[in-house]
Amino acid sequence: MMKVKDFRKTRETLTQKTLDLANLNIKRFFALDQAAYEEGTISKKHKELMGLVASMVLRCDECIAYHLDMCFNAGVSDEELSEAMNIALVVGGSIVIPHLRNAYAFWEELKSL
Amino acid sequence: MMKVKDFRKTRETLTQKTLDLANLNIKRFFALDQAAYEEGTISKKHKELMGLVASMVLRCDECIAYHLDMCFNAGVSDEELSEAMNIALVVGGSIVIPHLRNAYAFWEELKSL
Amino acid sequence: MMKVKDFRKTRETLTQKTLDLANLNIKRFFALDQAAYEEGTISKKHKELMGLVASMVLRCDECIAYHLDMCFNAGVSDEELSEAMNIALVVGGSIVIPHLRNAYAFWEELKSL
Amino acid sequence: MMKVKDFRKTRETLTQKTLDLANLNIKRFFALDQAAYEEGTISKKHKELMGLVASMVLRCDECIAYHLDMCFNAGVSDEELSEAMNIALVVGGSIVIPHLRNAYAFWEELKSL
Amino acid sequence: MMKVKDFRKTRETLTQKTLDLANLNIKRFFALDQAAYEEGTISKKHKELMGLVASMVLRCDECIAYHLDMCFNAGVSDEELSEAMNIALVVGGSIVIPHLRNAYAFWEELKSL
Amino acid sequence: MMKVKDFRKTRETLTQKTLDLANLNIKRFFALDQAAYEEGTISKKHKELMGLVASMVLRCDECIAYHLDMCFNAGVSDEELSEAMNIALVVGGSIVIPHLRNAYAFWEELKSL
Repeated sequence: MMKVKDFRKTRETLTQKTLDLANLNIKRFFALDQAAYEEGTISKKHKELMGLVASMVLRCDECIAYHLDMCFNAGVSDEELSEAMNIALVVGGSIVIPHLRNAYAFWEELKSL
Repeated sequence: MMKVKDFRKTRETLTQKTLDLANLNIKRFFALDQAAYEEGTISKKHKELMGLVASMVLRCDECIAYHLDMCFNAGVSDEELSEAMNIALVVGGSIVIPHLRNAYAFWEELKSL
Repeated sequence: MMKVKDFRKTRETLTQKTLDLANLNIKRFFALDQAAYEEGTISKKHKELMGLVASMVLRCDECIAYHLDMCFNAGVSDEELSEAMNIALVVGGSIVIPHLRNAYAFWEELKSL
Repeated sequence: MMKVKDFRKTRETLTQKTLDLANLNIKRFFALDQAAYEEGTISKKHKELMGLVASMVLRCDECIAYHLDMCFNAGVSDEELSEAMNIALVVGGSIVIPHLRNAYAFWEELKSL
Repeated sequence: MMKVKDFRKTRETLTQKTLDLANLNIKRFFALDQAAYEEGTISKKHKELMGLVASMVLRCDECIAYHLDMCFNAGVSDEELSEAMNIALVVGGSIVIPHLRNAYAFWEELKSL
Repeated sequence: MMKVKDFRKTRETLTQKTLDLANLNIKRFFALDQAAYEEGTISKKHKELMGLVASMVLRCDECIAYHLDMCFNAGVSDEELSEAMNIALVVGGSIVIPHLRNAYAFWEELKSL
């Protein structure tokens, strides 16, 4: 897993490049993706935790890093994080463990920044 | 997707058969699975919604039916359901749609029982 | 795999029910899904074949049935179908075989209608 | 999960139909698939157990049924089955449980035939 | 994602090492894999686009890089690429986005070589 | 794929960090994971090969590295490795190939240490 600053910068650069090259429907998808996590009947915090669990069971480190970043901003506590992580681990199995390890290291760095 | 009553009955029968035949470590896994959704720093309702989102993106109809049943018991509203469904759909893509359709039909039946 | 007529009818009924219950962003996703396969620089026929290959490697029988139906309408030949099927089988492996068997049975029925 | 006899018959019928329609490279794939489980430095029994574990973590009921049938023929014991099942469950997570339940029901029927 | 030259070199070195160590059936699989994308009733260009879409929804960066390289050689245009990418994104969901970003960066480098 | 020594060290460091931060149920999962591969009715060697095949078809390089390390310790021969690899390749398809390449390179390094 990348360091937090590198992750954020790489993500921004590549997203910009993608939006420069992508067609209209891809851009619309990006807008729908953004909208899915906005405050609603379910709070932004819980939506980001759902995004985190989904990213864990689908085993995508970059998606995990992004949702951890959002979870941290939304005020997720260590206990909440571990309870969500545990759901992801039980649902997804030991194949999730390498991502769990990366996630805790990333979270620890987020807290130290 | 099975009807609600058939789903509940089949699940119970097969779980019993599995626990009769399974070894100790499989039974321990079942206990861990149960424990993951208990009320904690995150409420049972939000944990069940996380289980639902994970089941949707991993595309398992029986897991979806189970978590819908639990979500209904936990008082999830129609709006909350759709917001969670939307996250699952955006993360998991159109391959999730057949399960989304089944989920709404199951939910409608849960509300009518 | 369902028979062609049952598949079409069930899909229509459940899609209607879903659109009745879903929120705006879910409906927007359905519109984006539709738009992805429209005639463009790549022909509708080749787009449907791409949708078929994606559905095969992700192993979703209902998605496969839908794209087979569209492929048939778009004039895909038996040889083209088998070449696309072969790509899906090689990429996705033997775990795809049950879906390959279902797909050929569905295709045969489409040709006989 | 289908009953054992229905499973075997459906599988044979659909495989025949597929081989009638498929092209040469698809047939070659089927031959490679068959060859992978032949007695070798690793015994057929252990290869079938590997095929079973792979089918469980990839969550394909028809593949599971097939490998259970082969495992039963190869003399796999109840304890061996549960140890392999446990590996699949731990690696693949609770999303595997519906398939685990089906697998035990199928195994019980195999023993009763 | 690796730079184009590094990707090509690493892939060649590791493939050679694999073929040195692998058994006959693994080598046969490699031959079947190669054969799947040869010019046929479906053009090589469209087959490579199918391989790309399959690699995107299955989220394998090295497979994506390989098929992008082949797509570029086969004369795929920017518009065709974006239409195929869009199908992969809609089918596979936002979990595909990190690979989409990498793919556009790789494509841009391919065009600049 | 990391070099063997780097892999072992990183894995140990991150596992320690994870166990420091994780809650009790996550730790219980780690214990169940460990227990699944202990000598039983199925030998440790064959269990590690099953873990390897599962990791290959689920395409997790770190899990593959771990099970290769365990397989090597358990005395798996080159022929046994290739037969297990072949099962994983046939079940999981060409999408597994990048991991197959990495696995052989890692194995070769294990033998040279």
